[in-house]
Amino acid sequence: MTDPLLEPLLAGDRRALAQSITLIESTRADHRQRADALLAAVLPHTGKSVRLGITGVPGVGKSTLIERFGLSLIGQGRSLAVLAIDPSSKRGGGSILGDKTRMEELSRQKAAFIRPSPAGTTLGGVARRTREAMLLSEASGFDTVIVETVGVGQSETAVADMVDMFIVLLLPAGGDDLQGIKRGVIELADLIVVNKADGDLEATAKRSAADYQHALRMLRSPTPGWIPEVVTCSAQTGKGVTELWTIVDRFYKAVGEMGIAHRRAEQARAWMWNEVGETLLGELRRHPEVKRLVGGLENDVENGRITPAAAARRMLQAFYGR
Amino acid sequence: MTDPLLEPLLAGDRRALAQSITLIESTRADHRQRADALLAAVLPHTGKSVRLGITGVPGVGKSTLIERFGLSLIGQGRSLAVLAIDPSSKRGGGSILGDKTRMEELSRQKAAFIRPSPAGTTLGGVARRTREAMLLSEASGFDTVIVETVGVGQSETAVADMVDMFIVLLLPAGGDDLQGIKRGVIELADLIVVNKADGDLEATAKRSAADYQHALRMLRSPTPGWIPEVVTCSAQTGKGVTELWTIVDRFYKAVGEMGIAHRRAEQARAWMWNEVGETLLGELRRHPEVKRLVGGLENDVENGRITPAAAARRMLQAFYGR
Repeated sequence: MTDPLLEPLLAGDRRALAQSITLIESTRADHRQRADALLAAVLPHTGKSVRLGITGVPGVGKSTLIERFGLSLIGQGRSLAVLAIDPSSKRGGGSILGDKTRMEELSRQKAAFIRPSPAGTTLGGVARRTREAMLLSEASGFDTVIVETVGVGQSETAVADMVDMFIVLLLPAGGDDLQGIKRGVIELADLIVVNKADGDLEATAKRSAADYQHALRMLRSPTPGWIPEVVTCSAQTGKGVTELWTIVDRFYKAVGEMGIAHRRAEQARAWMWNEVGETLLGELRRHPEVKRLVGGLENDVENGRITPAAAARRMLQAFYGR
Repeated sequence: MTDPLLEPLLAGDRRALAQSITLIESTRADHRQRADALLAAVLPHTGKSVRLGITGVPGVGKSTLIERFGLSLIGQGRSLAVLAIDPSSKRGGGSILGDKTRMEELSRQKAAFIRPSPAGTTLGGVARRTREAMLLSEASGFDTVIVETVGVGQSETAVADMVDMFIVLLLPAGGDDLQGIKRGVIELADLIVVNKADGDLEATAKRSAADYQHALRMLRSPTPGWIPEVVTCSAQTGKGVTELWTIVDRFYKAVGEMGIAHRRAEQARAWMWNEVGETLLGELRRHPEVKRLVGGLENDVENGRITPAAAARRMLQAFYGR
């Protein structure tokens, strides 16, 4: 039996897309079953979009940049779905990413679709639903998907693991301020964009960009065939924003279809194993006997009263009822 | 019943230490049981050493540096156990780390103990045995432990996750050569040592060090309370080698006893959960029905014929015999 959402979804109906995403976000068992069938049906219609990830701390101008960039894309005849990952988001609870006033102009565009982060307590769950929302957006005809995150927990890695190209948005800064960037994030970057390169900050932004450029040479590129770039822009004045697409275009040409296909295949396989591992650990953690033991074992391990290997063995014995 | 190895081990008998490590490296079930009991018995006598990790590609001069550094430590009245992690090592198969001619002078010292990497196919297994060898070395009275790795697979992360301070040894290089460093390794470094700062290469080494220093500002320190440093040295001439201990000393003072205790507690807890996860996944992978399915599912996932979540579900259903 075909899901009634399938036809309108594939035809590009926006309400059908929104409803489909709500369906995959549901935790009800019957919804989950229906969602899985719908995902299986749309799968052949996915994978044709440009998948971009963007991260940046609050205040860096992420929304303004995505709005400007999105409007510029739409002006070139493209379409854009913006999805968010924020494991701290609570629907209706005042999450920044769920803020309705964001990207007001972009959200009025027919060729744009903006969806706040699904609610959820684990990054794994939030990431899975965002990945699936990306597939639904692609099936619905969007040729560009941007997954954005404010960078809570390990969310940058989660985003980088689901997109083709990862963009890190930074503020103009110098010297010791550079220290503030979260560990590991710079190494994920295919492109660093120093925003707010306008007015008094323009010179600082240019200097920051040069610093980052210099420092990037120390790190191996996350993407074979591509050397990460650093640019400045001003989301507010629009300077440098349209040029970002030129870089995206260059990235896809440099990495090539085979390179992108290879990355996506790796991502999918890793995602599968991740789901398997998380499910197994989740079951272990929910086992009543494990629940009873876990606090004491963690404490004993942390205080050197038992070796981690012995503690792990006890936990597994409890799980298997031995 | 007390293990006959326990008393001589705690008394600092070198043969007892070597035999104890051989015991924990054994995969025989009865040996494993004996090893676990021995580890439980020595645990109260562990944790008092300075735990250092060192990584560097072949050719960087790691052995020469460790030998020089070790002899200098021993000259100051300290004792040193050098353990290695190399998941590609096959005992007797010509591994670089197992090379008997390495650190010849150091190995003749009474206050030194050098042990090549345990053989093994998985990093997890090799790492566990090295961690346990570290505990045995501490129980045997060594006040300094160096865990070294050539950096195969994720072995740098494994080493950083079992030591207090992680040192990255690099060659003098400039410009694009810097790109060659493995992703993520620089971010683990509490100390970068540019070796071979002698003769013609001295100026290049100094320039490299300045470049790394500059670039390090971009990355957050792996260790709260400590700002990573970059120094040059020459393992061959000995210049700068003795000074390394001054930095180690400064590191321990800056991080503090509480900081070190906190790091070790975190490491132990993470190790426990890692063992639990690896054991569960290992059991799943060995299940005959999973074995039958896994190749096809990985292939389907990589080629976008099935979603990773659906593939994970099938694998778990096969595992549970549903």
